[in-house]
Amino acid sequence: MRRRGWCSASCFLLIVSGMAFTRFTRRVSHAPDTYTPNELGVCTGRRWPADVPPLYVITPTYRRAEQIPELTRLAQTLLLVDSLVWIVVDDADEPTPAVVNYLQERRICHVYLIARMPAKYRNRNSLHKPRGVANRRKGLRWIKRHAKSGGSLYFADDDNTYDSRIFEEIRRTKKVSMFPVGLVTSLGVSSPIVRHGRVTGFYDGWIANRKFAVDMAGFAVNVNFFLSKPKADMPFMVGREETKFLESMDVTLDDIELLAVNATKILVWHTRTKKNGRAKPGDKKLDYSNSNIDALITQIWR
Amino acid sequence: MRRRGWCSASCFLLIVSGMAFTRFTRRVSHAPDTYTPNELGVCTGRRWPADVPPLYVITPTYRRAEQIPELTRLAQTLLLVDSLVWIVVDDADEPTPAVVNYLQERRICHVYLIARMPAKYRNRNSLHKPRGVANRRKGLRWIKRHAKSGGSLYFADDDNTYDSRIFEEIRRTKKVSMFPVGLVTSLGVSSPIVRHGRVTGFYDGWIANRKFAVDMAGFAVNVNFFLSKPKADMPFMVGREETKFLESMDVTLDDIELLAVNATKILVWHTRTKKNGRAKPGDKKLDYSNSNIDALITQIWR
Repeated sequence: MRRRGWCSASCFLLIVSGMAFTRFTRRVSHAPDTYTPNELGVCTGRRWPADVPPLYVITPTYRRAEQIPELTRLAQTLLLVDSLVWIVVDDADEPTPAVVNYLQERRICHVYLIARMPAKYRNRNSLHKPRGVANRRKGLRWIKRHAKSGGSLYFADDDNTYDSRIFEEIRRTKKVSMFPVGLVTSLGVSSPIVRHGRVTGFYDGWIANRKFAVDMAGFAVNVNFFLSKPKADMPFMVGREETKFLESMDVTLDDIELLAVNATKILVWHTRTKKNGRAKPGDKKLDYSNSNIDALITQIWR
Repeated sequence: MRRRGWCSASCFLLIVSGMAFTRFTRRVSHAPDTYTPNELGVCTGRRWPADVPPLYVITPTYRRAEQIPELTRLAQTLLLVDSLVWIVVDDADEPTPAVVNYLQERRICHVYLIARMPAKYRNRNSLHKPRGVANRRKGLRWIKRHAKSGGSLYFADDDNTYDSRIFEEIRRTKKVSMFPVGLVTSLGVSSPIVRHGRVTGFYDGWIANRKFAVDMAGFAVNVNFFLSKPKADMPFMVGREETKFLESMDVTLDDIELLAVNATKILVWHTRTKKNGRAKPGDKKLDYSNSNIDALITQIWR
């Protein structure tokens, strides 16, 4: 119940704030940075110029030592992009206060949702866990209910690296767009193979009989196209999430639009961040009683 | 000779472009983003509002699979910050074309220098290599020669994470400022210990008899203060670079200004990125002859 309440409130506030954007942006369109006021705490927005299709970025995340820095890096990339709704979906039982606070503080237009990995998958070993799938499905459901004004959707994990210029291309996707992703498998890049402007196959270290051998960060979908496919969904199938999602929308190779200069430029990378363990308590010889350290310790993963 | 020529050209162009900023910014100060034109290809600038002290950010970097994505993430953080000169110093024998191209493309005010680690340190095992020191010394020398208008300097490695809000505090440093850095050592954070607004010691998992047990990302220095100390320098002493640099400027605990809400908030993290090996050639069964893949392969680390 608590979770549902949180979501409904978010959605309502996003829509309300969304309606406010247009008026506000028009009024002060020449200001260096235009924000809508944030009385309600959910969607504060950035610039929403007229005629720029919105971009919905779905980011799965989960609690760990690196969660806030990873979201910080990604948020700062997204702050460079106009007309963007960041759908952050946390694999947690309850909202994570540090994430909620950060999103509100940084004045980014966002929706914060929570979606726990179903219990039956949680005890699998890490290679067989469908990571981020519950989160992405929740983000897709949000889009089905609330995205009404065109634009595109994109899955952006919080540890990858995105050159912000790719988002300007992604938002104009007509059906499905694809582009290369660096640092994927031992080949160092995953990309559609393109000859004479057409996709003839996939260059990826793990083809594995997938119809679309693409990385999660290597494609985007037009929102109206997605909404027109009632069976569109991402199954809990480790390693086949991307291809099965595209197949559920009856995508063909001929539907694919190529971005990043006809898929010749790497603008997205599958960077991976080293994990830190839980922090240990300070040495007893270190005297930090009644100091600022107490406040810092509340912010670290223990 | 080639290296020296490169640097002199950069410096000259930076200064020329710097003079152009003021006029240009005044002329179009209400534009959403003001850039100086980039005919000369080095310093294209961002916003330079009047009365905002400049910030010199020195970033050591080196060639590897993750170099461009790491610089991309950091650049996109710095693009949110006004009046900033990014001094990128590459540990390489010659300029790295991908880095030079990226810096010019992204319209960030930068200086690109190269500084190779001295040969005598290169064969040491990785724990004993003074990483980034030659780069930072080169950046400091550039500041000594060219920084004339106040402001502050800061060392920002390309794999760390910076909340862009810390830069607005750093630029107003009067002598030396300090603030917490997350994800450092097993304690999870490194910070000055503060009681009643004064520094009484350091919370860090590796004190090791250092006068200033701080991380490289945990302090900033006023440029005029630095210029007033002729002996200021960073020695090639692994693990003691920070304290020895501060000691070379006769800094005392009483000189330290505390940022990030009196050192109670973590706004900088020592994130570490997993290394990728050199990319392998694609499987012979994968037919990618005469396709876009040739262009992509030139962009990856092999």
